[in-house]
Amino acid sequence: MGNAIFAPNLQDLQRYFLKLAYDGTNYSGWQIQPEVDTVQERIEKAIRIILPDVSGILGCGRTDAGVHASQFYAHFESELDLPDNLVYKMNRILPLDIAIQDVFSVDSDTHARFSATSRSYSYFIHFEKNPFRNAYSVFHHKQLDVEAMNKACDLLLGTHDFTSFSKGPMQTKTNLCDLTSANWEEIESGVVFRVSANRFLRNMVRAMVGTMLEVGEGKMAPEEVKAIVEEMDRSKAGKSAHPQGLFLDQVKYPQIDG
Amino acid sequence: MGNAIFAPNLQDLQRYFLKLAYDGTNYSGWQIQPEVDTVQERIEKAIRIILPDVSGILGCGRTDAGVHASQFYAHFESELDLPDNLVYKMNRILPLDIAIQDVFSVDSDTHARFSATSRSYSYFIHFEKNPFRNAYSVFHHKQLDVEAMNKACDLLLGTHDFTSFSKGPMQTKTNLCDLTSANWEEIESGVVFRVSANRFLRNMVRAMVGTMLEVGEGKMAPEEVKAIVEEMDRSKAGKSAHPQGLFLDQVKYPQIDG
Repeated sequence: MGNAIFAPNLQDLQRYFLKLAYDGTNYSGWQIQPEVDTVQERIEKAIRIILPDVSGILGCGRTDAGVHASQFYAHFESELDLPDNLVYKMNRILPLDIAIQDVFSVDSDTHARFSATSRSYSYFIHFEKNPFRNAYSVFHHKQLDVEAMNKACDLLLGTHDFTSFSKGPMQTKTNLCDLTSANWEEIESGVVFRVSANRFLRNMVRAMVGTMLEVGEGKMAPEEVKAIVEEMDRSKAGKSAHPQGLFLDQVKYPQIDG
Repeated sequence: MGNAIFAPNLQDLQRYFLKLAYDGTNYSGWQIQPEVDTVQERIEKAIRIILPDVSGILGCGRTDAGVHASQFYAHFESELDLPDNLVYKMNRILPLDIAIQDVFSVDSDTHARFSATSRSYSYFIHFEKNPFRNAYSVFHHKQLDVEAMNKACDLLLGTHDFTSFSKGPMQTKTNLCDLTSANWEEIESGVVFRVSANRFLRNMVRAMVGTMLEVGEGKMAPEEVKAIVEEMDRSKAGKSAHPQGLFLDQVKYPQIDG
C-alpha cells in the first residue's frame, strides 16, 4: 500500500549507471544471496535510503566470493531526481571497502550486463613471502616458467567453448567466449596474468590461472590446455586458484568512455 | 623432567637476532597476553618446533593491536646449531601475515630492546575513499592543513616528557623521549607522518597523530601541542588515531647494518 506512491510510470523512469570499486575480501561475491553479505545488497540498501523508488541494481557481472573489482558498473532506474551529491552520500553510507566513483544517466537500452562488449581481469602472484601483499595477491613459493605459461595463453586466444574452465550449473545458453588477449607479465613482486574477453563464465579466470600454474610448474605441457578446452569437461582443467589475487579491472561499453 | 635435557649451559648459549615483518591486522599486538593471538606467541611456537631449547624471544618493542611492522627485530638464545634454512622453515610454519627475513648471531650483550638507539614509525592517511587502501592507511574525508601540522611537529622535536602522549599504566622509569625527526609529507594518495626517536611510549605515535589531526583540521593551534606536552596529562592530547595506518618501519642498532 505505502509503496504504491512509488509504482513506476515506465515512461518517466530514467536509467543510471553506477561506476564503483570494491574489495571482495569480506563479501560472498557481488550477487545477492540469502543469509550472506554481498556487495549488491549493500549498494541496494544504500541507494534506497536516498532514492526509495529504486527497485534493484543490476551488475555488469558476478564476481565470486573474495574476488575484487577495481572497475565495476551497475545500472538502476528511478523516476526521482538524483541529488547532486548522490556519490558522496552513498559513500558515507557504504562501508570503506565499497566505493562509488560516479553516477551518470544512460539510454534505457544500455544494460550493465548485456551492453558490455569486453571485460578484463588481472590475477596477481608474488614469489617472496610478504605480510602486506596477501589481500590482493597470492603467494606462490615455487618458481614458474612464464614462457611456457604464455605459450598456453596463446592457445586459448580466440573463440572457444570454455566449459572445461567453468563451474556449473550452467547459467547461460552458450559457453562460447572470445578471448581477445591473455598473457603473463613479470612485475617487481612476481607475475600478473591479464586477460580480456567479450564474456567470462563463472570461475573461468581462476580455473585458467590454476591450470596455467600447473604449466608454469612443469606439471603440464602448454599444448595440453588446447586438449582441455576440446574435452569440455571441468575435471580436466587445473584447480581453481585462490580468489584474493583476482581483480575485475575493466568493463567496456560502446556507449561509455573510460 | 623431560625439559631437563634442554637446561641451558650459559656459556654455550648463543644469542641470535631475527629480522621480521608483520601485518598486525589480525593480532592483539606483538606482546604475548593470555587468550589472544599475538605475533610473539606465533613466532615462539614456530621457532620451538625447529629449536626446542629456545625459552622465548624478546622484541625490540611492543606494537599495539592492529599496528604493523615492516621492520622488527627480536632476539633469542639457543645452544643448538641453527639449521641453514631456519628462515625458510619458520616461514613455512608461520602464517602469511608474519614473515621472517633474516637470522644472524650477535654478541651476548646485544639486546633487541635495550640496544636499539632509534625507532622510526610511519602513519598513512588517504583522502579519497579507496576500497584497497584501508588495511594500511586511514581514510580521512576532511582536508588537512599540512603546514600547520608540520609547525606542531617542530615544537615536539628534542627531548621532552611525553606523558601527555602515552597510555598508562607507566611501564618505564622515565617518560623522556628524544624526538629526532617528525614531519608530514604529501604523497600521491594523501599524507604520511614520519617520526623517529630514541624510544616511544605506549600509544605515543597514535596520540601524536590524533592530536595533529586536530591541528590539521583547524580545531587546535600548532602552538598548543607545546602546552599539551608541558601539562604531562594524557587527557589534554587528541584521541588515539586508528591503528591500521601505523607501521614500525625502522629500528637501528649501532651493532647492526641495515
